[in-house]
Amino acid sequence: MDEFDLIRKYLVPISSTESQFLSNDGAVFKPKINLDYVVSTDTIVEKIHFKGNELPELIAKKALRTNLSDLAAMAADPEFYSLSISVPKVKARSFIENFAKGLKEDQKKYNIKLLGGDLTSTSNLISITINIIGTVPTGKSISRSTSMTNDLLYVTGVLGLSNIGLLNLNKNDKQYSKAKLKYYLPQPRVKFASSIRNFVSSMIDVSDGFVQDCRHLARLSNLEFAINLKNLPISDIKILSYKKRMNSALIGGDDYELLFTSAPKYKEKIKKIAKTHDLRVTNIGYVKNGNNGQVTSNDKPINLNAYKHF
Amino acid sequence: MDEFDLIRKYLVPISSTESQFLSNDGAVFKPKINLDYVVSTDTIVEKIHFKGNELPELIAKKALRTNLSDLAAMAADPEFYSLSISVPKVKARSFIENFAKGLKEDQKKYNIKLLGGDLTSTSNLISITINIIGTVPTGKSISRSTSMTNDLLYVTGVLGLSNIGLLNLNKNDKQYSKAKLKYYLPQPRVKFASSIRNFVSSMIDVSDGFVQDCRHLARLSNLEFAINLKNLPISDIKILSYKKRMNSALIGGDDYELLFTSAPKYKEKIKKIAKTHDLRVTNIGYVKNGNNGQVTSNDKPINLNAYKHF
Repeated sequence: MDEFDLIRKYLVPISSTESQFLSNDGAVFKPKINLDYVVSTDTIVEKIHFKGNELPELIAKKALRTNLSDLAAMAADPEFYSLSISVPKVKARSFIENFAKGLKEDQKKYNIKLLGGDLTSTSNLISITINIIGTVPTGKSISRSTSMTNDLLYVTGVLGLSNIGLLNLNKNDKQYSKAKLKYYLPQPRVKFASSIRNFVSSMIDVSDGFVQDCRHLARLSNLEFAINLKNLPISDIKILSYKKRMNSALIGGDDYELLFTSAPKYKEKIKKIAKTHDLRVTNIGYVKNGNNGQVTSNDKPINLNAYKHF
Repeated sequence: MDEFDLIRKYLVPISSTESQFLSNDGAVFKPKINLDYVVSTDTIVEKIHFKGNELPELIAKKALRTNLSDLAAMAADPEFYSLSISVPKVKARSFIENFAKGLKEDQKKYNIKLLGGDLTSTSNLISITINIIGTVPTGKSISRSTSMTNDLLYVTGVLGLSNIGLLNLNKNDKQYSKAKLKYYLPQPRVKFASSIRNFVSSMIDVSDGFVQDCRHLARLSNLEFAINLKNLPISDIKILSYKKRMNSALIGGDDYELLFTSAPKYKEKIKKIAKTHDLRVTNIGYVKNGNNGQVTSNDKPINLNAYKHF
């Protein structure tokens, strides 16, 4: 099968009318009125972001979900995505067949359409780039730089679970199952993000590690983010020490949870929306004037660093 | 320099207000009214699409221009692009610095804005994915499947020149200069495409080789494309045989010229617009009922094949 056969057999069936069923050089969509369009791109590379022996269905879902998480951080609702796959020839057919199955399931789950993309061979490592497009009512996208003094700081879900999964992928103990699942299949908080849009002052998705992503918010707002580490929603997995679980939560990365600030007056509102979505949402600190641009615990900067590519 | 330093130093200066200067998880744009949005994605991989020893400025321009050519094929005007760069750590700084210089120049030349992207390390080969967004008046994008019987078939520029450049990259003879330049720096026909929008029935950009791309149009319209090979605008480079020059034109690829069909009544109009753009545009055949889905010369299908990834 050449690339045209592969596209016809596995990707055209999951494409959209906007993609013109992948027959043209580009896709065409008519923008909806009174909406802003939000665009984000994420690449995952074998050996860096994934090991390569995962099921292609899971690689597909993780690629899509990391992008969905970026849209969620802007409080945008997903609409479309474009997909670029580079894969070695020998693996191409079976990889793409199963990759497309994963996409199909998540397209339905997240109500998002495939616009098009590119399929190329490469000499060794698989690389996937997704470009995602979402919408938000005009002027309502959430930035990282607009938190205010006295805002409360919240985080969704549990931090560090995915990193614990990654560090223990080869262990068979059932206590690691939930952590491994979180690593393979992040749960982007798309619907929750959409619901809190009007009550949030700044937001980011925790993907590079809590401390680093929190510092991005603090720096861009030029305020201090004071954290109560005791309140941090870390994993309760009994097999690991508190220190290990806290470390994974602080610098582990790959959480794809939302970290956001919200005025104190919305406290009950946030609690109620979290309950509606059956989602754990924890108040872990607040925003203040002080060590501006820093993330602190008991007035001391937390200077831990996350994974860096370069 | 970590990825944040690299982005701050080299990519933020060439970013746009819509990109929010790369500070957020995504970019935000307000769509213009009465326009359709056209989206396309292309990936280029070291050792497959480029050798790796080219100047990063040229790799940047080629990556952007191959995408611009896809927009041109849909008759869309460029607006925005997103960029994903995967590069080995040791090369990162110098590559990105010079890559950004190339982008800056072409952003100005083609009036296109950087929305955002992703920067990741990879263990060996450079890979670049660009997602491009353009606009076209509502309903006016051009498809590959809508050519009509008796339409005339045209192609812009010279075919095979880029392939001749590629095959002779290491030769110093000055006769190859123009060909090598075309290989390194394609000239997407963006403004010409926009001008012929209302007079064209189907269009594609010649990127995989003339015969194959022509066959895409013929198949999608389910008509025969009858070519007069004598009229094909092949290179006049004296050092090569007619056969070699014709072969590069038929299956060489990397031309990024436009191949389009247009009703006979627009013949003078097309000629006039071509003249305005100082662009060679050649009538190389016509569309007919017959060997439907085939590209023919003297009623015989031309069954040459182009480069395939898989």
